[in-house]
Amino acid sequence: MRKGEQTRQHIIKKSAELFNQKGFAGCSMNDIMDATGLKKGGIYRTFSSKDELAIEALDYALERVAERFTEALGGANTAIDKMIALFDVYQDVVHNPPLVGGCPLLNTAVESDDTHPELRNKALQSMHLFLADIQDILQQGIANKELKAEIDVVSLSSFIVSLLEGSIMASKLAMSNEHMAYSKQQLTYFLRSLQQN
Amino acid sequence: MRKGEQTRQHIIKKSAELFNQKGFAGCSMNDIMDATGLKKGGIYRTFSSKDELAIEALDYALERVAERFTEALGGANTAIDKMIALFDVYQDVVHNPPLVGGCPLLNTAVESDDTHPELRNKALQSMHLFLADIQDILQQGIANKELKAEIDVVSLSSFIVSLLEGSIMASKLAMSNEHMAYSKQQLTYFLRSLQQN
Repeated sequence: MRKGEQTRQHIIKKSAELFNQKGFAGCSMNDIMDATGLKKGGIYRTFSSKDELAIEALDYALERVAERFTEALGGANTAIDKMIALFDVYQDVVHNPPLVGGCPLLNTAVESDDTHPELRNKALQSMHLFLADIQDILQQGIANKELKAEIDVVSLSSFIVSLLEGSIMASKLAMSNEHMAYSKQQLTYFLRSLQQN
Repeated sequence: MRKGEQTRQHIIKKSAELFNQKGFAGCSMNDIMDATGLKKGGIYRTFSSKDELAIEALDYALERVAERFTEALGGANTAIDKMIALFDVYQDVVHNPPLVGGCPLLNTAVESDDTHPELRNKALQSMHLFLADIQDILQQGIANKELKAEIDVVSLSSFIVSLLEGSIMASKLAMSNEHMAYSKQQLTYFLRSLQQN
């Protein structure tokens, strides 16, 4: 990797972690300079603005989390086990989330929905991809006669994503993984009620 | 109401709406001056700092939402109907939330969990009160033989709050109330499976 590209990746990674903890508005160029060990000129030679950096940092953050979900799904066989595996990615959200600061989809959605259309659009695209993946898995579960045929996969996938994101919020707020564990427990009960006999 | 108290309430209300849309870090004193029509001196005569104002504004915001929940619960009879009524408070979260900007618990939790301990504590207290109210309702549902005795009310109440908050995030991000409606639909199915026969 060339030096310029190494610097670029270093800035993106450190900024992604910072934005995910402090938010876009809550993070100054000074914070980014501190975290990267670079001077302002060094950052602006690579990115023309904080906005441009934020977009790239969000791409990076969302990709890191998506990798973790893909890995978790690969280790599970049934549709129900795959849904539970998504929650296991965040089972230690308090001390060991996929990316420091928690879920970049949740953080960006909440910060940007009323303020920053470009970041909002990225987060929305990411949620749509996530929903589509979950719909495919549920559809496969129906095709395999694991899940009942009458399930509305669009509705159920939306419910699962909302539950996961809300549980991340609750566990991070309470600094306790118990809320994530409770959601996983209740979701397990519910999904069992949707199994074909 | 005395003039000073009127001004104070005016600043709190306008700031609560602003913080709920733009976040604490994303909201400047100039924004607050614009929204209130007051000069900086007029605001600082009433509140010594943006921090002090933020705490009072959050109290105001959480109380407004709590009032809406209390009202919704009063209009429902069974434990299941009361849980559904909580989701109805946010059924038009995109165009008509209880407070402009969405849910102050969610917004504050996500912004402050890594950055602002005092706001975080307020949001956490609010979540604990909300969880305790839901636990009471579920417990009553068990006592009335509406719900199965083996339900873990601590776990189920946590699941319900996470689902509600995550659905607010998803619907606001997508600018579509459908995610809230899907969560309400799936929750209804799940709660029915927890009814005593």
